[in-house]
Amino acid sequence: MGMMGKRHVGNRFDCVVVKLGGAAITRKGELETLDHEVLGAVVEHIRLVKEDQGGKLRLVVVHGAGSFGHFQAKEYGVQGGSLDDERTIRGFAETRVSVTKLNHAVVSALTEAGIPAVGISPCGFWDEEASPKSIEILKHLLASGFVPVVHGDAIIQGDRTVILSGDRIVNYLSVEALRPRFVLFLSDVDGIFDRPPASDGAQLIREIEVEASGRFEQKVEFASGHDHDTTGGMAAKVEDGVFIAKHGIDVLIARAGSTAALCALQRTFPACLSDDKWRGTRISLKG
Amino acid sequence: MGMMGKRHVGNRFDCVVVKLGGAAITRKGELETLDHEVLGAVVEHIRLVKEDQGGKLRLVVVHGAGSFGHFQAKEYGVQGGSLDDERTIRGFAETRVSVTKLNHAVVSALTEAGIPAVGISPCGFWDEEASPKSIEILKHLLASGFVPVVHGDAIIQGDRTVILSGDRIVNYLSVEALRPRFVLFLSDVDGIFDRPPASDGAQLIREIEVEASGRFEQKVEFASGHDHDTTGGMAAKVEDGVFIAKHGIDVLIARAGSTAALCALQRTFPACLSDDKWRGTRISLKG
Repeated sequence: MGMMGKRHVGNRFDCVVVKLGGAAITRKGELETLDHEVLGAVVEHIRLVKEDQGGKLRLVVVHGAGSFGHFQAKEYGVQGGSLDDERTIRGFAETRVSVTKLNHAVVSALTEAGIPAVGISPCGFWDEEASPKSIEILKHLLASGFVPVVHGDAIIQGDRTVILSGDRIVNYLSVEALRPRFVLFLSDVDGIFDRPPASDGAQLIREIEVEASGRFEQKVEFASGHDHDTTGGMAAKVEDGVFIAKHGIDVLIARAGSTAALCALQRTFPACLSDDKWRGTRISLKG
Repeated sequence: MGMMGKRHVGNRFDCVVVKLGGAAITRKGELETLDHEVLGAVVEHIRLVKEDQGGKLRLVVVHGAGSFGHFQAKEYGVQGGSLDDERTIRGFAETRVSVTKLNHAVVSALTEAGIPAVGISPCGFWDEEASPKSIEILKHLLASGFVPVVHGDAIIQGDRTVILSGDRIVNYLSVEALRPRFVLFLSDVDGIFDRPPASDGAQLIREIEVEASGRFEQKVEFASGHDHDTTGGMAAKVEDGVFIAKHGIDVLIARAGSTAALCALQRTFPACLSDDKWRGTRISLKG
């Protein structure tokens, strides 16, 4: 039982993948506005945990775009846009200026706190899939003690521009490239709820056990996400969590900056799950 | 004669490589300070030329670090540093925060002027050499009308951190990857002089013809560069220009933001060389 899962135990790269939700670290309704308080708390948590572990904890951070990039991507139709269309070309460039601005802010905040963060933009090495050399470099950075910070990006595939979401990157890195100890989603809510978190009587689902087929018992009712959220809300989060878990990699979801998030990061997983401070959702393979 | 050179005429990718000198677009003595006037002039030149050509001109920009990154790289010994050394790890991260800050400023300035610039950081796909997939993506971006903006970066090679200078990137892209129509170095001086440009009686050398061996007739006397210039000054520029030219690719050097620079960019090369407005150095293969 626990974090090693039942299947696919080979080829694990000892690390933790942390997804930093765009909605958690930015103010989603306000163009290109960081949530400094939440970002500061996340940075402090990573600093504490890296310090505790004497730098031995290997951490890769992937962040979404939040209020950076989404507006531009939507306005210019970057998702699935044609490279023959001048508006697509312009929108692609403007989207990337915006998402790389956020990436630089996250990397700067980490580095200023003494965490050796290294910003990595997929656009230069990812079309239909990531360049194998780039995955090797990422592992090399991780093994050397760096914290690579990858971000959702606009990339080109064939004659189209597409949005490579942070969640898609997490899926790929977790299931295909790294097979980490676990994946931690730091969200703007406490975890997966049985209905939209703001609804009356919404209950946090603490445990979702998925079958190898991806099926699970819990009922989850979804609301539609923010209008400018190109890459999906809670429904996508459940889908991604289930996808990773059914491949034998445990997924934790907690609120960014919360005590539960720190608890999950402090190598106390799976012990954190029985801790009073734990409040979040765990998605794991049944068995 | 002229821009097609005598040898290696195959596999040319129709584009121009523009090297934007770190010393030209930043104030080298002042930490992380852009020279907005020069950068603005360069952006305006690129805008004019892209507009003239109806977007058909394929341009890849490579810039140096100037007062971004050099201080940090020197302080922490990033050039040749060991990945086992915590100071190297820290210095690498800080150097990259600084150089990517400059890259973001250059890309933003171009994009705000309507030029679809795409920032590309080597760290994620370049160790001993660049990932072939990344070179394909770069060509795809170029062919689609984007202006990729690559920058001198800190990268890892084996168990060492090294500085991949903008000039090294230009050499590789020019000779190995693209074989462009010509390479334009936009500098903080008018070109190559027979002695340090600030010296009494310094004469601009308008033409350097190199043999296939790399030998050339002109005498050039060098001064040592700025103390924090990790990647060499005028001597390196001559060496790089000669290296590219001896492979059959013409090199032009002009002052960033000058009429000569605009003239060189306006597809009037090699016609620009007989133009009154031309003031710079051309390095080409003899014969």
